[in-house]
Amino acid sequence: MSSSDIFIGETIGTAILILLGGGVCAAVTLKASKARNAGWLAIAFGWGFAVLTAVYISGPLSGAHLNPAVTVALAIKDGDWGNVPVYFAGQLLGAMIGAALVWVTYYGQFHAHLTDKEIVGGPGAQATSAKAVEAQEKGAGPVLGIFSTGPEIRNAVQNLATEIIGTVVLILAVLTQGLNDKGNGLGVLGGLITALVVVSIGLSLGGPTGYAINPARDLGPRIVHALLPLPNKGGSDWSYAWIPVVGPLIGGAIAAGIYNAAFA
Amino acid sequence: MSSSDIFIGETIGTAILILLGGGVCAAVTLKASKARNAGWLAIAFGWGFAVLTAVYISGPLSGAHLNPAVTVALAIKDGDWGNVPVYFAGQLLGAMIGAALVWVTYYGQFHAHLTDKEIVGGPGAQATSAKAVEAQEKGAGPVLGIFSTGPEIRNAVQNLATEIIGTVVLILAVLTQGLNDKGNGLGVLGGLITALVVVSIGLSLGGPTGYAINPARDLGPRIVHALLPLPNKGGSDWSYAWIPVVGPLIGGAIAAGIYNAAFA
Amino acid sequence: MSSSDIFIGETIGTAILILLGGGVCAAVTLKASKARNAGWLAIAFGWGFAVLTAVYISGPLSGAHLNPAVTVALAIKDGDWGNVPVYFAGQLLGAMIGAALVWVTYYGQFHAHLTDKEIVGGPGAQATSAKAVEAQEKGAGPVLGIFSTGPEIRNAVQNLATEIIGTVVLILAVLTQGLNDKGNGLGVLGGLITALVVVSIGLSLGGPTGYAINPARDLGPRIVHALLPLPNKGGSDWSYAWIPVVGPLIGGAIAAGIYNAAFA
Amino acid sequence: MSSSDIFIGETIGTAILILLGGGVCAAVTLKASKARNAGWLAIAFGWGFAVLTAVYISGPLSGAHLNPAVTVALAIKDGDWGNVPVYFAGQLLGAMIGAALVWVTYYGQFHAHLTDKEIVGGPGAQATSAKAVEAQEKGAGPVLGIFSTGPEIRNAVQNLATEIIGTVVLILAVLTQGLNDKGNGLGVLGGLITALVVVSIGLSLGGPTGYAINPARDLGPRIVHALLPLPNKGGSDWSYAWIPVVGPLIGGAIAAGIYNAAFA
Repeated sequence: MSSSDIFIGETIGTAILILLGGGVCAAVTLKASKARNAGWLAIAFGWGFAVLTAVYISGPLSGAHLNPAVTVALAIKDGDWGNVPVYFAGQLLGAMIGAALVWVTYYGQFHAHLTDKEIVGGPGAQATSAKAVEAQEKGAGPVLGIFSTGPEIRNAVQNLATEIIGTVVLILAVLTQGLNDKGNGLGVLGGLITALVVVSIGLSLGGPTGYAINPARDLGPRIVHALLPLPNKGGSDWSYAWIPVVGPLIGGAIAAGIYNAAFA
Repeated sequence: MSSSDIFIGETIGTAILILLGGGVCAAVTLKASKARNAGWLAIAFGWGFAVLTAVYISGPLSGAHLNPAVTVALAIKDGDWGNVPVYFAGQLLGAMIGAALVWVTYYGQFHAHLTDKEIVGGPGAQATSAKAVEAQEKGAGPVLGIFSTGPEIRNAVQNLATEIIGTVVLILAVLTQGLNDKGNGLGVLGGLITALVVVSIGLSLGGPTGYAINPARDLGPRIVHALLPLPNKGGSDWSYAWIPVVGPLIGGAIAAGIYNAAFA
Repeated sequence: MSSSDIFIGETIGTAILILLGGGVCAAVTLKASKARNAGWLAIAFGWGFAVLTAVYISGPLSGAHLNPAVTVALAIKDGDWGNVPVYFAGQLLGAMIGAALVWVTYYGQFHAHLTDKEIVGGPGAQATSAKAVEAQEKGAGPVLGIFSTGPEIRNAVQNLATEIIGTVVLILAVLTQGLNDKGNGLGVLGGLITALVVVSIGLSLGGPTGYAINPARDLGPRIVHALLPLPNKGGSDWSYAWIPVVGPLIGGAIAAGIYNAAFA
Repeated sequence: MSSSDIFIGETIGTAILILLGGGVCAAVTLKASKARNAGWLAIAFGWGFAVLTAVYISGPLSGAHLNPAVTVALAIKDGDWGNVPVYFAGQLLGAMIGAALVWVTYYGQFHAHLTDKEIVGGPGAQATSAKAVEAQEKGAGPVLGIFSTGPEIRNAVQNLATEIIGTVVLILAVLTQGLNDKGNGLGVLGGLITALVVVSIGLSLGGPTGYAINPARDLGPRIVHALLPLPNKGGSDWSYAWIPVVGPLIGGAIAAGIYNAAFA
């Protein structure tokens, strides 16, 4: 693959990943969305099928890493770091584009949600409703969760451990794909399996932190949240931002180590 | 493929698509349906598996476009517009047949729903219940949503953008199918992936407008809604009807342009 | 395939189909079940994956018809009625065994449910709770729905039409399987697609009658319901029993006719 | 496969199975989990995709039994008991590691849940809330269900029968995998089918006992529950512990017998 194919593929693929993944969070969260309150199963399937769609579309161009933790793990496994910066650049740019597209898609819903006094307490005011107070106590504005992850219980050690564990599972599934594909027609099925693994991680390990398991997925949209002219959007919770970046990278490295020790 | 196979395949396939897609909306919406209030996840899976079923059945005959945006995008990609009118004709006819079959399948449920005073306020009267008033404020009768899409917030620019974005994702997945199928046994799996992409779009991008992403899917059933002798059915919301036709066609063209620029 | 393989395969397969299909209805319905009130999506996925499991296990023995409508449609398509009686016999016997196994699996739950005064109004008494009255007004005992289907609105013409339409969709998908399998590795994937088609029919067309779309699926368990020593079980609603037998057989014949006219 | 590959594969695979399977129970149960009250469908899909993930990762190393009932059934079918102890050891160790990882992942949630007076009635006190009383009446602490299964209605005969029936279905699907794979590209698809069979068993047969259908899945986590320093955790319900061990082993043997009689 050429560097330009990698960059374009990762940009398009990660943009679609975040458009669909952030999109399902917007769909379930925002006022005046037909899918409001569709529940955690919708979130988990939504992110899983976002991975499927993004992998399917960008796979032929860049191999569809779409996640710096995948890129790092494959670099460790293969001992080849040559294209890592190109992958990273495409992933971060794509994640930012995807987050901006969520905002375009749900433009009116964001405005209706963030100007609803029941939800945010009105411009310039303290949150007054129970929901708004709860959101502020969590140190996050009422729509940050559409862009980036945040913990239910703020504990750096546990939050980091949760992100590491989730990412180890994801990356082990990515790395063993080659072992499962023995000319038996795995092909695109690998993307489907990976997608269902992501559904699994969401259902099973997403409860404490919202499962970033991907630094670009969290950091890119957080930057966009900070930049967008949303009324009453609240802070971008930068004090937490390092955990969903560092945790998945550690997880990717651990998974590559397990793979090299036990599977290679 | 012969023109008659294309016409018959598209007619049968789009009829099944709308029978099942409109069917799940009826199942979740109407009084005296066992699936009433099954929620947005049921809608999203219902439409996705409707695509799967319709593609699987009609694929051997016509290639299963079932969507004018697919037909346009493939014509742009391949530079061949010869069969486009045949595809369009089959799709529109099939969509109308499918919508009529939804009415047959849920005949008693439509009647029970539309003559319930809690829901429609009674024959010849203004809507009096909160639900009926809300439906009328949206400019739509209480069952139009079973046939055609409508926005939660009426804003032509955003609504058009949402339909364009959703369709771009769909069509990119359709166009990259050929790249993913390198003699590795994709075959019918392509239909399954496309179906799950549609589930994804529904979960993630369906909140604002109900995701037509297919002109025939929206226009054909809207015509049938206007024609059917349903009591208290309300208007067919023709002022909105151009958006789910124009948006997906623009989206299809944009996706074909992206494909030709980046993937071909 | 030998006649004995066909008989054994159909018996085992249909028993598993009904064990799992009736099982999900018991799981969602009965008191003291962990899955109680899991909703229509659970029903639709439960029946679909019941088909998957049963087809996967019995396919190597009998080809996994598991449904007289499938057997009739294939006989019409192939012009070969030789094994039809053997298929029918295995299907009916298997359905009865499966229904009995549901009773074994949920033995305590059936008893707890049927002796709960809130639910049935107590032994020998008229139903007094709203739920029990509603069940009796539908002309069915409170657990018949675990065994057999019944309409929400009793209208022979509509009920028959609904069963015919649902079966036509199912059988068209079964018949086109051969066209989709061009040595491209469909294999067991055909069973998965069929299973998801059944999920689709459940979500989209199941609202009015509960989608028998299979005479054995409805008749066998209804016989078992009539025979089992369940307290306060209510009637077996024999006046409705012909519709889920005749409708699917008509649907199978129509689908075979469409197939022979348009696809063969 | 070497003994060490088998041991490592089963340990890693069963650890992932229980991490994800126990994880979804924690996610749906515990206070301060984003997925709390996500419902039975989330449980069933969560366990099914846990199987998928674990099979996919450990399959290349050990063949991914991950369940003593699978190991026993394959030993009966093949008449080869040589590696059975190695499989058992890896499965039990892996299940214990997985359960410990659930505790790490949901560390803060466990503490918040078990020190909530509404849920457990406070340290050293009798349960006072309705929920806590109900949990104690079931003879189980309020979080045991995250680790191990328990019956809704305590009846050894029925509970054993339910576990046997569920396991027979699972093992028949595992054993017929070889018959379905005739060089037609089944490959990794077999893991997907098995996963959906597990979803099916969960939806349809899980209501009475919570479907262990795997001795290691139940015993390993129960030991960890007994060892972990959780406040107010309640008893480990050892009087029930034999049923989810013995039932699945009987089920595996019966399924192997059916297979050898009817399919081989």
